[in-house]
Amino acid sequence: MNQLLTSVATDELLASALGTLRIVLEYLGTVAFAVSGAVAASRRRMDLVGAVVLASLVAVGGGTMRDLLLRQPVFWIENPTLVLVAVATALAIAPVARRRDIGALARHRIVEYSDAAGLAIFVVIGTGIALDAGASPVAAMIVGVANGVGGGILRDLFAAQVPEVFWNGQLYATAALAGAVTLWALWALRLPAEVVFWVPLLVIVLLRVLSLTRGWGVPSVAVVQKRELQTESHA
Amino acid sequence: MNQLLTSVATDELLASALGTLRIVLEYLGTVAFAVSGAVAASRRRMDLVGAVVLASLVAVGGGTMRDLLLRQPVFWIENPTLVLVAVATALAIAPVARRRDIGALARHRIVEYSDAAGLAIFVVIGTGIALDAGASPVAAMIVGVANGVGGGILRDLFAAQVPEVFWNGQLYATAALAGAVTLWALWALRLPAEVVFWVPLLVIVLLRVLSLTRGWGVPSVAVVQKRELQTESHA
Amino acid sequence: MNQLLTSVATDELLASALGTLRIVLEYLGTVAFAVSGAVAASRRRMDLVGAVVLASLVAVGGGTMRDLLLRQPVFWIENPTLVLVAVATALAIAPVARRRDIGALARHRIVEYSDAAGLAIFVVIGTGIALDAGASPVAAMIVGVANGVGGGILRDLFAAQVPEVFWNGQLYATAALAGAVTLWALWALRLPAEVVFWVPLLVIVLLRVLSLTRGWGVPSVAVVQKRELQTESHA
Repeated sequence: MNQLLTSVATDELLASALGTLRIVLEYLGTVAFAVSGAVAASRRRMDLVGAVVLASLVAVGGGTMRDLLLRQPVFWIENPTLVLVAVATALAIAPVARRRDIGALARHRIVEYSDAAGLAIFVVIGTGIALDAGASPVAAMIVGVANGVGGGILRDLFAAQVPEVFWNGQLYATAALAGAVTLWALWALRLPAEVVFWVPLLVIVLLRVLSLTRGWGVPSVAVVQKRELQTESHA
Repeated sequence: MNQLLTSVATDELLASALGTLRIVLEYLGTVAFAVSGAVAASRRRMDLVGAVVLASLVAVGGGTMRDLLLRQPVFWIENPTLVLVAVATALAIAPVARRRDIGALARHRIVEYSDAAGLAIFVVIGTGIALDAGASPVAAMIVGVANGVGGGILRDLFAAQVPEVFWNGQLYATAALAGAVTLWALWALRLPAEVVFWVPLLVIVLLRVLSLTRGWGVPSVAVVQKRELQTESHA
Repeated sequence: MNQLLTSVATDELLASALGTLRIVLEYLGTVAFAVSGAVAASRRRMDLVGAVVLASLVAVGGGTMRDLLLRQPVFWIENPTLVLVAVATALAIAPVARRRDIGALARHRIVEYSDAAGLAIFVVIGTGIALDAGASPVAAMIVGVANGVGGGILRDLFAAQVPEVFWNGQLYATAALAGAVTLWALWALRLPAEVVFWVPLLVIVLLRVLSLTRGWGVPSVAVVQKRELQTESHA
């Protein structure tokens, strides 16, 4: 019995630690998403309003899409904490944004890995909520991927650019989809909630890291023209 | 009585044939819409992710708008068949998409006529659902037109281009509106459901064909500048 | 008692006059918003369809965002009057739109002040509805600002341009936010409905006028490059 209690205590400690880690990842991802919004605003020569709005859009745009598609209350209407985190991030970055190194910030490894954490956690949360809401597996995966990548797509739309996730050839939406499929499979196997949550999350982070460090990616569908080797830049 | 039975049988045969035709048109339209999405992705130099997303957006974007505006369950959350048809279309086209003739595919007569079928059926379904949901006639027509043209508008937005339906001068949204008005009039006259469904559908297809073959269209509202005869191309 | 009756009569007259003024401002704002949509359509060389759609989008896009975010019936589904006002405005402007002075129209003082009235009234209505719907104060302000500026943002998105409100450095979204904050403060103080409605409205109009006449604004977050004095134009 003593052993059992210890075991329970350990389980509770683990659960508590994982719960804390989950919240840390959620905030980390929100900040990274907001950074990418503020950087995009700076690159497109926006003003402070644009920076704050774009940062917020990246942070909560995907979750808003999820809630609208599932006809659930939009999560930030009742509790706008994550919006405020995004606004604070944008305001903190604004003073440095006029300097030239803002672009480097978005490509900094810390930001890229935080973004991977944000992508992973939002996809997992989105897919889980969709399955709980009774969505079909395919729809749940779509909603989960939209939860993860929707904010970045809105950021690019509002910057009047083709969403980067559609052309950069990296594993991004694909990593999100792999995580969503994994989550559905584990969920269908009725594995414990901890497994259903953390394994897909690790799958997404791993695929992102492999894409960033090893160049893993998806093929282009661009029309290949004969002499365009030197003009491969995206319009 | 024998005659009556025959008559009933014929009616049932007709109803069954029309029902099958309706489903055929819906799939045909979905494939044509998906083709236009995949072609747009290829032209904008996207990767496979962009092609799949754009194809799906064109196919189900209009219906999603309709359901959100009417506060009804989003149709593909429960049954994602049409999403899968669009994804399959995009994947089937991808291998040929890197070749130069992809643009020709989108302008192929079969694709253009299938697109007309898709436009017609989605407008009719959308307007009908909106009227059934108690929308005012004007709102029902708007929702129906959005159901038909919304997907293509989203495709162009995600390709960072001015939606083609807003500037190409063809009868497209106008054809959709004419069909929606016709549907409302027939519906208000309490004509049989078959008439309310098929007559507006034919009106839309006919107007599209007249626009494609005879050049029927709507006037431009572009600012005319003095010496721009040679620079009429759309930015 | 005679005095009381007179007082009541005066109050009723005032209330009636303010109610009429509110409706006048709402229509004035709708027309001004629609003008900006039709002008944007003309500048982007669209056809009549684009002009009508863009005019309607600016007029009712913000309110539609509000209703979707708050999960309330979309206001124009039941009563499409404001959509029809926008469509009529676009059709009335179309004949002059092909002439060169259409741009001057949008910058005409009457249109700019009517636009300020529209912004003010839509922000006040949106924030009020959101608070009534039980949104948190921060969310209510966001919804209110979206109600006011959302239509213009959609207009620019559909014209494939970076939304002007994100980069023009004027007090626009900021004026809207100041009005929304004011409204929330007065509402939290349980002041009379007339005060809660009209004071924030005047705040927004005043800030807009100061921005238009005195150049009050918000700072840019654009990356400043060394030799770009001559290339400051927005891409």
